[in-house]
Amino acid sequence: MRVGVLTGGRDCPGLNAVIRAIVRKGVQEYGYDFTGLRDGWLGAMEDDAVPLDIRAVRGILPRGGTVLGSSRTDPFKQEGGARRIKENLAAREIDGLIVIGGADTLGVAARLWAEHGVPCVGVPKTIDNDMFATDRTLGFDTAVNTATAAIDRLHTTAESHMRVLVVEVMGRNAGWIAIHSGLAGGANVILIPEQPFDLDQVCAWVTSRFRASYAPIVVVADGARPKDADLVLRHDAPGNAEPVPLSGVGEWLAREIEKRTGKEARTTVLGHLQRGGTPSPFDRWLATRFGLHAIDCVRDGDFGTMVALRGTDIVRVPIAEATARLKTVDPKLYEEVGVFFG
Amino acid sequence: MRVGVLTGGRDCPGLNAVIRAIVRKGVQEYGYDFTGLRDGWLGAMEDDAVPLDIRAVRGILPRGGTVLGSSRTDPFKQEGGARRIKENLAAREIDGLIVIGGADTLGVAARLWAEHGVPCVGVPKTIDNDMFATDRTLGFDTAVNTATAAIDRLHTTAESHMRVLVVEVMGRNAGWIAIHSGLAGGANVILIPEQPFDLDQVCAWVTSRFRASYAPIVVVADGARPKDADLVLRHDAPGNAEPVPLSGVGEWLAREIEKRTGKEARTTVLGHLQRGGTPSPFDRWLATRFGLHAIDCVRDGDFGTMVALRGTDIVRVPIAEATARLKTVDPKLYEEVGVFFG
Amino acid sequence: MRVGVLTGGRDCPGLNAVIRAIVRKGVQEYGYDFTGLRDGWLGAMEDDAVPLDIRAVRGILPRGGTVLGSSRTDPFKQEGGARRIKENLAAREIDGLIVIGGADTLGVAARLWAEHGVPCVGVPKTIDNDMFATDRTLGFDTAVNTATAAIDRLHTTAESHMRVLVVEVMGRNAGWIAIHSGLAGGANVILIPEQPFDLDQVCAWVTSRFRASYAPIVVVADGARPKDADLVLRHDAPGNAEPVPLSGVGEWLAREIEKRTGKEARTTVLGHLQRGGTPSPFDRWLATRFGLHAIDCVRDGDFGTMVALRGTDIVRVPIAEATARLKTVDPKLYEEVGVFFG
Amino acid sequence: MRVGVLTGGRDCPGLNAVIRAIVRKGVQEYGYDFTGLRDGWLGAMEDDAVPLDIRAVRGILPRGGTVLGSSRTDPFKQEGGARRIKENLAAREIDGLIVIGGADTLGVAARLWAEHGVPCVGVPKTIDNDMFATDRTLGFDTAVNTATAAIDRLHTTAESHMRVLVVEVMGRNAGWIAIHSGLAGGANVILIPEQPFDLDQVCAWVTSRFRASYAPIVVVADGARPKDADLVLRHDAPGNAEPVPLSGVGEWLAREIEKRTGKEARTTVLGHLQRGGTPSPFDRWLATRFGLHAIDCVRDGDFGTMVALRGTDIVRVPIAEATARLKTVDPKLYEEVGVFFG
Repeated sequence: MRVGVLTGGRDCPGLNAVIRAIVRKGVQEYGYDFTGLRDGWLGAMEDDAVPLDIRAVRGILPRGGTVLGSSRTDPFKQEGGARRIKENLAAREIDGLIVIGGADTLGVAARLWAEHGVPCVGVPKTIDNDMFATDRTLGFDTAVNTATAAIDRLHTTAESHMRVLVVEVMGRNAGWIAIHSGLAGGANVILIPEQPFDLDQVCAWVTSRFRASYAPIVVVADGARPKDADLVLRHDAPGNAEPVPLSGVGEWLAREIEKRTGKEARTTVLGHLQRGGTPSPFDRWLATRFGLHAIDCVRDGDFGTMVALRGTDIVRVPIAEATARLKTVDPKLYEEVGVFFG
Repeated sequence: MRVGVLTGGRDCPGLNAVIRAIVRKGVQEYGYDFTGLRDGWLGAMEDDAVPLDIRAVRGILPRGGTVLGSSRTDPFKQEGGARRIKENLAAREIDGLIVIGGADTLGVAARLWAEHGVPCVGVPKTIDNDMFATDRTLGFDTAVNTATAAIDRLHTTAESHMRVLVVEVMGRNAGWIAIHSGLAGGANVILIPEQPFDLDQVCAWVTSRFRASYAPIVVVADGARPKDADLVLRHDAPGNAEPVPLSGVGEWLAREIEKRTGKEARTTVLGHLQRGGTPSPFDRWLATRFGLHAIDCVRDGDFGTMVALRGTDIVRVPIAEATARLKTVDPKLYEEVGVFFG
Repeated sequence: MRVGVLTGGRDCPGLNAVIRAIVRKGVQEYGYDFTGLRDGWLGAMEDDAVPLDIRAVRGILPRGGTVLGSSRTDPFKQEGGARRIKENLAAREIDGLIVIGGADTLGVAARLWAEHGVPCVGVPKTIDNDMFATDRTLGFDTAVNTATAAIDRLHTTAESHMRVLVVEVMGRNAGWIAIHSGLAGGANVILIPEQPFDLDQVCAWVTSRFRASYAPIVVVADGARPKDADLVLRHDAPGNAEPVPLSGVGEWLAREIEKRTGKEARTTVLGHLQRGGTPSPFDRWLATRFGLHAIDCVRDGDFGTMVALRGTDIVRVPIAEATARLKTVDPKLYEEVGVFFG
Repeated sequence: MRVGVLTGGRDCPGLNAVIRAIVRKGVQEYGYDFTGLRDGWLGAMEDDAVPLDIRAVRGILPRGGTVLGSSRTDPFKQEGGARRIKENLAAREIDGLIVIGGADTLGVAARLWAEHGVPCVGVPKTIDNDMFATDRTLGFDTAVNTATAAIDRLHTTAESHMRVLVVEVMGRNAGWIAIHSGLAGGANVILIPEQPFDLDQVCAWVTSRFRASYAPIVVVADGARPKDADLVLRHDAPGNAEPVPLSGVGEWLAREIEKRTGKEARTTVLGHLQRGGTPSPFDRWLATRFGLHAIDCVRDGDFGTMVALRGTDIVRVPIAEATARLKTVDPKLYEEVGVFFG
């Protein structure tokens, strides 16, 4: 039996731990051969491959990144991309392909299986945690740790200088990192894409925080936007607020808060820091168990399937179902957390 | 409405975060008054109390330990203990008591409610993660992080000196910390109380590891014991193995491995380090959500109830059920992890 | 004896540890009374003061920020500012004033002593490490730790995506954080204000790194500037390079590298993260020893003096001398480190 | 030119960073060839060698341990050991040997140079910081960070349970780790080998701490001993104190404190945790600069020399002088720190 492995999409902690678990179990217990495809779907299309054996995965458990490289290439956007993947895998006599990726990468896997019969098994990773069908995605816990450590660090500056500190975290479509790190870091305002925010309300929280204690920390997901549609859509908006730029909501928010409250405000954009570093023990555990179960899916011939976390169990779900829609923050959860605002 | 809060049992990260969440929501949303009982059930029996208000919980979210103090006092082992608690709470006009503790502390809460009608709500905490009815107990994630960081650190010494390094972690009755930190830390042998171990097998793994790569890390829960009953029970055991002491299994194991394999072995006992420090972001999140839901139980008059994690939801379960039995490591999970041994 | 204490300038880890050491020794060994002046020179001018006793400094050793608040107010830029400070201190019968600050804050102390006879003792703090007369300033070690941890974290993303990662660290006038964190983090290019850089050389290093191994990390101090004066000074510069903005050199550099090498580049700006957090053990040690020696200066009537680190000793130097010029990175040190570029 | 490199003695963070700097500069700037001798002096005696090139040192900067392995073998205790080393090096045409080690390993280097003309250059490493002639030894900063983090962690348990917590750190002959981590961690008692302690005084500090605040943290170097010689030397000591065991002073101290003060006491032995892990940014900086200067010593033919830190400069000193005596904690420094006891 010959098994292919690839990692696709943006960087995320824990990818190497998945690869290691797949290879360790596949070689030791089932005697499989492994081939790594380089740089995600790009390597699958261009037949850029490396052998993967026990030796190649030694010592990679705690290392961030991916020894296989990654890309955001979509074979369905390239003429004959899917066909070339199918042919390349056939030429290498690969019986199963384990795809470690986010919604985009796994969406390709779902189509390759459904439309071309490429035997894929999926492992869900994204620091954004916005994939349906799994309680947690791989990489989320580490990203929350990084963001929370940054917020912890900023409290002392807020306190010493009586400044508003805005922290922009990742979350284009879902506010999971914002809400988890904001809650854990004791933020005074948390803004997420699911709930367009009211600038006046934000400023009221900021002002009330200054009265009650010291300077506020505002955590904002990079996909959060104000309620007022004019601010977002029109670049010639009248009044004293600027339109919200497509990127840089944190910087924009700090300027608006300054204008409206008269308090100094500063922004910190965490950016790529959230994608790197050694995976947290939770993510190493999750990655390892995902890997162990993914190779069992291959052994069972259970393709078109993604491994997922439910409670403390690893289960199997159809990839197509898991990638069909986003998992967003429930309004009730956001309301629950709102007790700490202001 | 007047609400009491106490923390009982051994130290555990996240207790303060629970207290803060309870008080923030109880005061801000429901207008309740709070009383902290000092040092667990001891303060409840001896009416040692402090007022708890918003000011008292400011800044405690990231702090380990408990501002209320703790003890392992069992009122049912003291003449009239339960009655005195009931009287003290009545004298203070306390309408609900939130009890943050492990199986022992919550076992008392279950009996006080069942036998004396003391209106208790439970919050499950223990770094050991061995409480039934909740996917995770509070404090476990932080303890696993501490243990994993220690194992990461010991790898380099094992590698540089070709020595066996035995790491003794907590886990008297259940091997959760051992199995999670051992897996995340890339340990080569993991020994847990649920699965009495075979010394010859342990030595075989140690020897095989030396052949394949470098020196092995052996993670052992402090409640793990060898299969051979003679070693455990009889202090006059014949043969060349010493009986296992009630404490110090790590040290014992290192000596036995040295004797049998001829390799140098060293032990590190993590001990109290696993109980302290700032709670991890996960534990701060869990603590906060447990606290928010516990105060809602009080508001609903839902006593005899414990909050618990199921998947990503906080649910309510009878305290009596949650404390009736231990949650131990499933043999299938231990087997799954066994692929990394040796 | 009555002693005043103030903290001025930007936030910096270890300020609280200095305050604690001063008060612990001053009260316990010398029986002095202490007064904290709030928000740096602002509180001294406006007589905004708080009592400081053993109780007030309990538990603050590991906390970042400053319990006294800070500001960048310069009394010499305010009509009668210096005179008001002198009068306020006299009215409070303060016999000595310990000033914890950077070059600006201590420059004021030097003038107040020289021109007005205000009995000042200085403690040098700044994460930038650019103060003359001391081997290290307080806060530098912690800032280097924060920056290095960030660089460590970005390596995996650089590796997985074959992207140039530019990290902008603090250092308006001196490249100490850049050179220390860049060296410790294994950066492939380090750019500092003391050495205007050649964009073509930077691009050559970037390109050579891609050939030799994986994607490069470029660490740039926020005060670093290119050699080509046109780029810096003229906003209507011809050619294909943009002028360098006064802030945002990291972002500018990433864009220029992309244009010239054809490789993707991303920027991370560490910003305030470098100022916050718990002080490192080294900074706690330095802060404590600085505080213990500063109070001895007061006891000895040794005013106009700053405590400083020389090797492993704490010595006394004239504040005026210490603030007269910047400590910058020696060209020989930069050259020494250059072996790792490319 | 052919250069040998070996690492000897106990494990210590930063060894790999030294090796990398030596090889990078030696190959890139001077075009030298490198040979690594395995397991310290053992490999030199037995001619166990590996080639060292740029590729071999890639990625090792942040890794603890040593890629060359280590041992505590002393060639002068083996018949013909020194002669064999000389012959092996000659056979390999090695023109200079860089020896990275502590007092024992470098003591051998000093003799090999003085008595046999083996061209050695030394780099001082030991977490204990007890080598004369250098302000800091490599590894010390990391060990202090580890010990301080452990003490930080134990505070919350001390506070929650009103227990004495004894932390045993390394320091057989000198109390550097104890005094630095104890000061940085806010310990209430610090005991070091240089200053035999008075058990009654220790108990008085413990008792006074309980009165003033909460439970005390006692940091004890593993080489610290009580003043009372009887306790140390005689195993049949009369009275109510047990003799001090050669190892385990922390455990012994906890029992004595319990007996004398009636307070519960617990011990944590940090042990090997202090030797492992990624080197701190300071140690990576020091290691790198030591390595860069060591290869320059070889280039200059400056043998019998050790690189050392003086202030912020790297200087050269005779190895023989550096290893002739221990650097211990100055009684005045211990007294300075004593203000925080109790």
